[in-house]
Formats: sequence, C-alpha cells, structure tokens
Amino acid sequence: MNDRISRVLKKMEEKGLTQLIVSDPLSIRFLTGIMVNPGERLYALILRTSGKHTMLLNYLYFVKDTGFEEVWFSDMEDQISIIADQIDPEQTLGIDKTWPARFLIPLQEKLPQLKTVWGSDCVDGVRAVKNEEEIAIMKKASEINDMVMEKAANYIKEGMTEKQIADFIDSEYLKAGASGTSFDTIVCFGPNAADQHHTPSDTRTLKAGECVLIDMGCVWQGYCSDMTRTFYCKSADPEQTEIHDIVREAVLRAESVIKPGVKFCDIDAQARDYIDEKGYSEYWKIRLGHFIGQEDHEYGDVSPINKNEAEPGMIFSIEPGIYIEGKYGVRIEDLVLVTEDGHELLNSVEKKWRIVG
Amino acid sequence: MNDRISRVLKKMEEKGLTQLIVSDPLSIRFLTGIMVNPGERLYALILRTSGKHTMLLNYLYFVKDTGFEEVWFSDMEDQISIIADQIDPEQTLGIDKTWPARFLIPLQEKLPQLKTVWGSDCVDGVRAVKNEEEIAIMKKASEINDMVMEKAANYIKEGMTEKQIADFIDSEYLKAGASGTSFDTIVCFGPNAADQHHTPSDTRTLKAGECVLIDMGCVWQGYCSDMTRTFYCKSADPEQTEIHDIVREAVLRAESVIKPGVKFCDIDAQARDYIDEKGYSEYWKIRLGHFIGQEDHEYGDVSPINKNEAEPGMIFSIEPGIYIEGKYGVRIEDLVLVTEDGHELLNSVEKKWRIVG
Repeated sequence: MNDRISRVLKKMEEKGLTQLIVSDPLSIRFLTGIMVNPGERLYALILRTSGKHTMLLNYLYFVKDTGFEEVWFSDMEDQISIIADQIDPEQTLGIDKTWPARFLIPLQEKLPQLKTVWGSDCVDGVRAVKNEEEIAIMKKASEINDMVMEKAANYIKEGMTEKQIADFIDSEYLKAGASGTSFDTIVCFGPNAADQHHTPSDTRTLKAGECVLIDMGCVWQGYCSDMTRTFYCKSADPEQTEIHDIVREAVLRAESVIKPGVKFCDIDAQARDYIDEKGYSEYWKIRLGHFIGQEDHEYGDVSPINKNEAEPGMIFSIEPGIYIEGKYGVRIEDLVLVTEDGHELLNSVEKKWRIVG
Repeated sequence: MNDRISRVLKKMEEKGLTQLIVSDPLSIRFLTGIMVNPGERLYALILRTSGKHTMLLNYLYFVKDTGFEEVWFSDMEDQISIIADQIDPEQTLGIDKTWPARFLIPLQEKLPQLKTVWGSDCVDGVRAVKNEEEIAIMKKASEINDMVMEKAANYIKEGMTEKQIADFIDSEYLKAGASGTSFDTIVCFGPNAADQHHTPSDTRTLKAGECVLIDMGCVWQGYCSDMTRTFYCKSADPEQTEIHDIVREAVLRAESVIKPGVKFCDIDAQARDYIDEKGYSEYWKIRLGHFIGQEDHEYGDVSPINKNEAEPGMIFSIEPGIYIEGKYGVRIEDLVLVTEDGHELLNSVEKKWRIVG
C-alpha cells in the first residue's frame, strides 16, 4: 500500500467514510502515478477503507497494470450504471471537488437511497502537505521563477508592449528547462494593474511613470511556481510608492507569523488588518493566498474564513494587493513553505519597489 | 431578450424547469458575450422562466453592465449561502453539466428539500445548433485546418520526430492567423497510432513503411476545427492499406446518410456495421464522433446510445478507426455540418491513403 493512499484512508476513517470517488486526474496521478486526460468521459478511482480499490477506465485510455481492480468500459456502455455497480448504496459516499453534475446527478438518481457528501478534503488535504521530493521540485520551480523575474526586470523598456514582456518571460522559462507556464503570464501597465486577471495587450505600450505588475509562474517536473512583483518605469510618484510600501509591509507581516499551528485566518488578518488600518480595505476584497502544487491553485486558501491550521510541508501564496480602478494596482506575492519550526520563503526577488526601463 | 436565451427558456419550459444554473463559462459567453475564467471560484448565470435572470459575480472579475440582475460577492463571504438565496427550494432546479461537486453537494445540503436535476441539455442543446455567423467561422477554422494538413503532408520526411511535425503544424496555425490549437496536436508513427491520445515524442523518428497518423485542430475566432488523416512514409504494405480502405469506406458510409431527422445511432451504425462486417470490431470500441464548437468536444455525440436526431446547423465529427495495439492504427476524421436538405463536409483533404516523405 502506498503511503499517500494510506493517508487518504486515514482521513476517510476520521470522517466516517468507507468509500470515496476520486475523479480529479491530478489526484489520481498523485495517488497512483497514472495520468489520463479523460475529457468528458468517466474516469475515477474508488477508494475503500476495506482496502479494495477500483479504477474505472475507458478502453480509449492507454493504461496498463494499475495495481488496482480495473473495470473497463467502452463509449457504448452506460457509464452511470457501471459506476453505480461499484458503490455500496447503504454507505455514505464521499465525492471529490471536481466531479461534475453530468455524473453526480445521474448517479444520485440511479441510487436514490445513497447519501453523497463532499469528501474532497480526504485527498486534497493529503495533496496539500508536500513530501521532501515535492518540496525539492517546488523549490527548483521557484528558483527558475526568481531568475526569470530578474531577467524580465532588466528587459523592460519604455515603449514595449505588455505582450512583448509576457512573451519574453514565457521563452525564458523554456530556455531554463521549464515545461511551460503554470498559468497565462500576467503583465499589466498603469491602470491595467487594477485588473487582477488582465490579459497582456499587444498594442498597449509602457509610458514613463507607470507601474509594471508582473504575476508569473512556471511548471517544473509537474509542479508550479507563482510570484508577483510591481515595478515602476523610469520614475515613481510618491502616491504609488506609498501604496507599494503598504502592500510590502502587509506581505512581511503575514509571512512573519507563519509556522505550524497558526490558523490561516490569523495569517490573513495580519495583512488585512494592516491594509484596513491604512485606509485601503475597499481596494482589496480577495483572499490573501492559495495553495499550490501540481496546479497553480489547489485546495486550501489563506482567507478570513479558513480556520484550519498550517502544517509542515504546506506551500501556499501570500499575495495582498491594493487595486485602484482606473489608476493603478500593486501586488506582491511570494510562495511560502511551512517548516517544522517556522517557514521558508520560496522566492528571493527583492520586494521593495524599484525603477526599471 | 436575446434569441439564444429565449431558446434556452423554451427548452426549460418543455422540460418543466423554472430555474437553471448555467456555470460553464463558455455557455455563459455564448448567452451573454461575457467571458470570465473563474478558476475555483463560484461563477453562474441563473436563468428563470419568469424572465428574471441573475449573474453571480466575484469582485475579482472585471465585468461591467451585464444587463442582468447582478449579485456581487467577495472571497470573504459564504458563496453557497449566496447562491442558495437565489434558488426557489420549492421548484426543481436544473444544473448544467460542468458544475462541480464542491458547489453542488453543499447547495444540496443547504437546501435539503430542493430537487436537483441535470438540465444541461437546455443550454447545450442550443449551443449544439450553430447560427450562420458561427457556421461561417467554423468553416474558416476548417479551411485553415485543411491548408495546414496539406502543408504537413508535404513537410513530413523519413527520420523526423513526431514532435517536429507537431511543432510545424502548431507554427503554421499561428502563421495562418489562428489563435492556437483546439487540442494538443497528435502525431503518431507506426505502433503509436494505436494510442488515440498519444503525445508526440521528440525522440521517436519516422521509418520508411510506417503509418503517420495526424489528428489536429485550430481555434479561429473562438471556434474549433478538428481533422485526422493517416499517411504512409515512402511505402505502404497491403495489410495497412486494406485497413485504410475499410476505415475510409466507413467514413463515407456514415457521412452519406447525414441529413435532418436521421438518428445519431443510425449514423454510427453505418460505420460500425461495416467495420464489424469486415471483422475489425474488436479494434474499434469508441463512439463515431463528437459535437464541436467553442470547445473541441461539446455536448452531443454520434454513438450507438444517442437516439436524438440531427438538426440543421449541427456540426460534429465522423471519425472511425481501427487500432491494432503494437502494430499500427488508422483514423480518418472530417467535420460535418447538417444542412436543411443534407450535409456539407467542412474538410476537403483527400481521404484516400497516400505516400509521404
């Protein structure tokens, strides 16, 4: 029995679950090493505390010797009946976060007496705590990110477009051996920085005095990095640098308290209370951070409503911001690893504002 | 009231639904023109036959003046309570195909008396029938695909890697003005062609006598193309060309019967019965085709279990294959548009086997 599955079964027992549908392909890869992109087809690993686990596989997938009981089916068969046959309708069934309504609702209709509950924390809670190997990979992914951010800072020049800088970053990742980006690279000039999911424009050019917000991450051996810095082109007016200083202080305060046992809502409060105190709370209404691993955003966040406690091996972002629509935005983001006795930053690029271009 | 929403409401009435959650961002774009990538956050359009429609929006999304009732919320609020407040628990609620368990199960727990049903056909059935503008865009996407397939056929040379050919295709798409691929380009040599979702290798080189299966598609103005052809390098042995002829005949038979009113299972049977008759049914266990539009695979398929009838404006693939593990594979795929009195092929690349390299 592999250790990861044992940890999931332990969480199922704590939750009183005997059966769990794991459907997220990345969770299945995490637990079995097998990677399938099922598209709209059914694909699942059913874990049972009895120790008998079953993989549901379409003939279309080229998978061999999973080591689990395998149930194969074709497009011509009724997928819902096939999975229903694997479920004990007398026992509560846990379901992971991504299973879509196109399977869940027909299964509920097929087995009306079955009780279904959200059981994603059983597997995602295990994914959230990284082992030594995963930590080493994620450190390397963030080292590449640090290196490429420095290159980007040196590359930026007045008159360039957002897209030009984003393309530069993407190509530097590939040169560094990363397999690609962990999300579409975000480069924003001036007022565009107030839009947290801005798409880089191939016509908008950089003007002196504007902010340059860069939010970027790469994938290294299947794991993600993610970091944000905000620079200024040629010069920075005091209004903008004052806000930058506030956001940086919010990052430092939040990072300073991270250690095992601290509640995520209390980490969030460090940044939120400070920004509130400075009078900018209306310009920052989102959570402080998100977990990260095989995906850029994974289960778990740093927010006022998350009362869970940090554990060694967890890796998440700390990324407060102040976004003033029509004017500018500032965000500073690091990834942080919880260690046995505190924390370690995965990013080392200077956070203090700097002039580029 | 826009025509697309009217058509969805009509389908809801036929199904006896008064309220429907539309969560697929592409469906919301189709109905409203608004595109948001919500990631793991709640995002939904609630359609009601009463005519009052509501968009649920996180402050993070930069969306303005939707024309619907807007309910805005932040990461600090309980998203499930916010959506529950918008639902009438006395009326059955339709849910679209993609809504994940992380929202659906907590909503069911919050409103235990609520009846939830799969209502995706109300919106996906409307998306499946393309209007004139969409048809024109999809024809252009397939014209680009035809042109690039011809270029690829001329480009292939003995000794090249699968990845090299895939990269060539991807770059030709961009040169032709496409925004990218509609799925990862598939190039398979010899035995790899038996794996329908093979990833192009950067080490596997092409040898004389081997088959070259290419399954490729691009995105043009937000809509997809998708086509497959199977070539042979330098020479082709009769065993392989005989199978190629069988697959081509299966395509032709299936395409020949397509017109309004024909059942999808009957289209499928044209190809399946022929391949069966030729003794290869065990080497082809998947559906004949899939619908396509904003996504490469959309709701709807051409399979033995789909009893629905073809309607003018529907576009789907016809793609039988014969896959012999360890030896080779053949697939031939066209996109087909159902017209008022028959059908029109969106692809014109010759289907008969040919020698390349």
